[in-house]
Amino acid sequence: MAPLRLALAQVNPTVGDIDGNVELVLHWTRQAVARGAHLVAFPEMMLTGYPVEDLALRHSFVTASRQALESLPARLAAAGLGETPVIVGYLDDRGDSPAGPIPIAGSPAGKPSNAAAWLYRGRVVARATKHHLPNYGVFDEYRYFQPGSTLSVTRLHGIDVALTICEDIWQDGGPVAVTRRARAGLLLVVNASPYELNKDDVRLELTGRRSAEAGCPLAYVNMVGAQDELVFDGDSIVVSESGQVLARGGQFVEDLLVLDLDLAEAVSDASATLPASEPSAGIQIVRTEISAEPLPSYPMQPGPVAQRLTDEAEIYAALVTGMRDYTVKNGFSSVVIALSGGIDSALTATIATDALGAAAVHGVSMPSRYSSEHSTSDAADLAGRLGLHYRVVPIEPMVATYLANVELTGLAEENLQARVRGTVLMGLSNQYGHLVLAPGNKSELAVGYTTLYGDSVGGFAPLKDVPKTLVWRLAAWRNKSAEEHGQQPPIPENSISKPPSAELRPGQLDTDSLPPYHVLDDILGDYVEQDRGVAELIAAGFEPELVDRVLRMVDAAEYKRRQYPPGTKISFKAFGRDRRLPITNRWRERVKPGS
Amino acid sequence: MAPLRLALAQVNPTVGDIDGNVELVLHWTRQAVARGAHLVAFPEMMLTGYPVEDLALRHSFVTASRQALESLPARLAAAGLGETPVIVGYLDDRGDSPAGPIPIAGSPAGKPSNAAAWLYRGRVVARATKHHLPNYGVFDEYRYFQPGSTLSVTRLHGIDVALTICEDIWQDGGPVAVTRRARAGLLLVVNASPYELNKDDVRLELTGRRSAEAGCPLAYVNMVGAQDELVFDGDSIVVSESGQVLARGGQFVEDLLVLDLDLAEAVSDASATLPASEPSAGIQIVRTEISAEPLPSYPMQPGPVAQRLTDEAEIYAALVTGMRDYTVKNGFSSVVIALSGGIDSALTATIATDALGAAAVHGVSMPSRYSSEHSTSDAADLAGRLGLHYRVVPIEPMVATYLANVELTGLAEENLQARVRGTVLMGLSNQYGHLVLAPGNKSELAVGYTTLYGDSVGGFAPLKDVPKTLVWRLAAWRNKSAEEHGQQPPIPENSISKPPSAELRPGQLDTDSLPPYHVLDDILGDYVEQDRGVAELIAAGFEPELVDRVLRMVDAAEYKRRQYPPGTKISFKAFGRDRRLPITNRWRERVKPGS
Repeated sequence: MAPLRLALAQVNPTVGDIDGNVELVLHWTRQAVARGAHLVAFPEMMLTGYPVEDLALRHSFVTASRQALESLPARLAAAGLGETPVIVGYLDDRGDSPAGPIPIAGSPAGKPSNAAAWLYRGRVVARATKHHLPNYGVFDEYRYFQPGSTLSVTRLHGIDVALTICEDIWQDGGPVAVTRRARAGLLLVVNASPYELNKDDVRLELTGRRSAEAGCPLAYVNMVGAQDELVFDGDSIVVSESGQVLARGGQFVEDLLVLDLDLAEAVSDASATLPASEPSAGIQIVRTEISAEPLPSYPMQPGPVAQRLTDEAEIYAALVTGMRDYTVKNGFSSVVIALSGGIDSALTATIATDALGAAAVHGVSMPSRYSSEHSTSDAADLAGRLGLHYRVVPIEPMVATYLANVELTGLAEENLQARVRGTVLMGLSNQYGHLVLAPGNKSELAVGYTTLYGDSVGGFAPLKDVPKTLVWRLAAWRNKSAEEHGQQPPIPENSISKPPSAELRPGQLDTDSLPPYHVLDDILGDYVEQDRGVAELIAAGFEPELVDRVLRMVDAAEYKRRQYPPGTKISFKAFGRDRRLPITNRWRERVKPGS
Repeated sequence: MAPLRLALAQVNPTVGDIDGNVELVLHWTRQAVARGAHLVAFPEMMLTGYPVEDLALRHSFVTASRQALESLPARLAAAGLGETPVIVGYLDDRGDSPAGPIPIAGSPAGKPSNAAAWLYRGRVVARATKHHLPNYGVFDEYRYFQPGSTLSVTRLHGIDVALTICEDIWQDGGPVAVTRRARAGLLLVVNASPYELNKDDVRLELTGRRSAEAGCPLAYVNMVGAQDELVFDGDSIVVSESGQVLARGGQFVEDLLVLDLDLAEAVSDASATLPASEPSAGIQIVRTEISAEPLPSYPMQPGPVAQRLTDEAEIYAALVTGMRDYTVKNGFSSVVIALSGGIDSALTATIATDALGAAAVHGVSMPSRYSSEHSTSDAADLAGRLGLHYRVVPIEPMVATYLANVELTGLAEENLQARVRGTVLMGLSNQYGHLVLAPGNKSELAVGYTTLYGDSVGGFAPLKDVPKTLVWRLAAWRNKSAEEHGQQPPIPENSISKPPSAELRPGQLDTDSLPPYHVLDDILGDYVEQDRGVAELIAAGFEPELVDRVLRMVDAAEYKRRQYPPGTKISFKAFGRDRRLPITNRWRERVKPGS
């Protein structure tokens, strides 16, 4: 056995900001070296951010990524950090096959690869290429990358370290199996693995299982921070060969996980290539040596194991991170939110305040003739509790002027009110540079209970993937959490307890048009997230007529979802890049007569 | 040699409308049989429409497609059409490998396949599965399908007919090479190949080349009609082994292409499987026999060769088809358009009128205090020429009321005017059920010269993929075409000749903010369509400062494009599903100092 002090840098790069991301690598490597690390690992696509989407098809961008990678070792060395090997993910314009790029059926050749490199003493000394390319859910990696065909194994202080990238450990076979055959002492996995509820449990199970398959400890470093709809939760993990957790990073925080590992020493150099008849055929081991001798023994430090957040705390942290990074990375320093006195806008404003501070949050109450008294008083109460900027802009004069000039009645008049509010918000955005936050939740968006260009206006929609019942749970949790910390609960109790209403006509309630939210969310979970058909929904006990009504609403609202702002994905299947349905779509799940 | 009368049914299915698509098959098979066809072929994914996107992941939908396929032969037989073999594309819940579904790395197992089947005498007698899955541009077929591993060869009247699907002939090797080795007498290709400018020329060259490689004539049947952003142009083609065009269908019209072919008779049944060392290894030939004996000779008819449209006529037909099908397939019977007196809204209204008839088109002039006199007079002139419904709604009262209640100046005031217009349009849409058409062009959308929730409101944007210079060309062409047919040119000459202006402040011209459109469109062609970087643009002769300014505008406008309505793709790379960039993106192509 031989010791190694490993540092996993769980950091927050920005897509496209190659210079800024290089600075992050320098900054965190300096911290790691100061703490005595022998090896520092950064996430997948560290230098470019992730996902870069079609930037991967732009030659100038791919070249810039490779050039940044190639100039980085000299910068590390110049900063006195050259003696500690650093692993960074980046976009490479080459594949790793000696035979040239591997063609992917149906795609033009010459694709870049999703790569990671070892940097040491001023040089790039080894390189790994992602083998398994995810192409489901939010992932489209067959569009962008050529797959790798090698496994990089690098000897450092007498320990063979195998390097793989993200999906490589989510699929059976391939790099993990080859790691075992290479008799590596450590399997290092660099990741940009987006958050979704319960994924931390899945990752823990997965890393434990793969370490056993690889026959060595596994170190998993993940990105943190948000990119458009995706949020990365960090949650870096180191497990022993038997699946025991040796260290775990915090969730939704930048973190440097440093720990000492006692690892199996490398054996001989025999058998660098596997026989072609093996299941892992096609993956060739590429070995590199940095230092063959184990380090002399030293007092070893265990790694920290960060406490897990509760489900509510975890989701809330995801929403705060997603909202903050969208705002900041897009150059905004303030936001504006319509405060209706209802629960959605109250939770949205609370998230914004937790993300940016109250000084950056502007609330606007825009009462109409149909607004209840409590709509303004609850909004003012919320603003007071949070310490927001707050103003009132009654919309009646504008609404009346439209109605005097264009004949609008019924639904057209209801929607007009929402659109006047949207226009006021966008005016304030243009005038003061605020980002507009749309307060809509996933349940509303699913059934189209939202006005296009009305309450749906905005640059970002923090609750887009949060069902209404979860909105209430999060609001209650946030208030309780404040109380536990001796603070005033931010959300007025009345906003939580009153029956939801759009207040676009006298006495209107959401339940006039929709089933109770606990029923609605149950159906939506099955239909939207699980893609279940009518027969399965009815078999699950839902009333056929209700199923029919809800599914028709969902199907008919696709055009509204297409023009909705992005929002943070927290569920297994979010609207947006995750669930991709045509607008023109005559398929209707049908309830069979008599069923 | 043996004769065969082939019918290619170039028809317009609707996504999700399985029942309606089955009726189309019955209707067109009846026509083909009446014309004596021995074999009728329908496009790829005929029963489901194309692309179905994530409907392919819904079990109930895939099952419905297969059930429709399996019940169709009996319906054809019951209608007296069972003696003529029919080929239809559909979605199958099975792959074609005897070993079960083929796993695609990075994807859950159990995917459906993009299939086509031979129907004859009440039964499904043979089945083909798409081998090459396109996964670039607008295509995401690795997300949805498992690839096929067989080539279906069916003997009909003594002729071996090989059946392949779309991308199978766009990629080298695979099914085409196996067709030659199977010594087929005809290669039949069923397609859902979307239109883009010049693609008909590419298809002609391709079919000629592949027929030579296959060693037999090639018959290519394509879909017609539109689905969201895609439009299918038909343009079905039959070429001889030497690449001579034997028949060609019309563009953007439903068509039944019937012709007699004199084809090589089938040889022996030897060698159904290729040796594993061949380049086409892995594709197994599956042979089926319907009838071994050639037909007695009969008087043979040549096929029609439809005249090609000019570029302008072709693009215009694409835009009319795209706009008509979006409207009709989504259940709308009328549209509303803001008429500014400018060229974009004039062309949009002309397209709408050509698509739906003047009675279905409602034009609204919404002058402000900054509107020129000619803005209303040109709009009225256009409406008169087209015979549209026309009304005037001055926006000054609404604008003034906002300004009296909220402090909005400068750009915020300019945008306010556009948003008041958007709100009026959406009110009329809600009140009367019209679909709102957004008149924006590709150049504006590229640089963000559009007001979010203002002139960008709408369910569909016919000119979304049409650069401004092409808008002018199409307008001039449409007027000239009218004159040639002895009709009044629809578009007022003044709308074509006056300098473009948004008229949101006194004396404003587009050239205040943008370079001249012929320069702008040139840069956009290189940057947006070709993904060229700054260095290449400067090398192409563009002024560095101008390149810098335009690219920054394009990059910064991504958030506006995300919320823009869909519009018909006509170019190599359209905004929307074709060009996929992150919103949060700090990558900026930089002009090097001194370059």
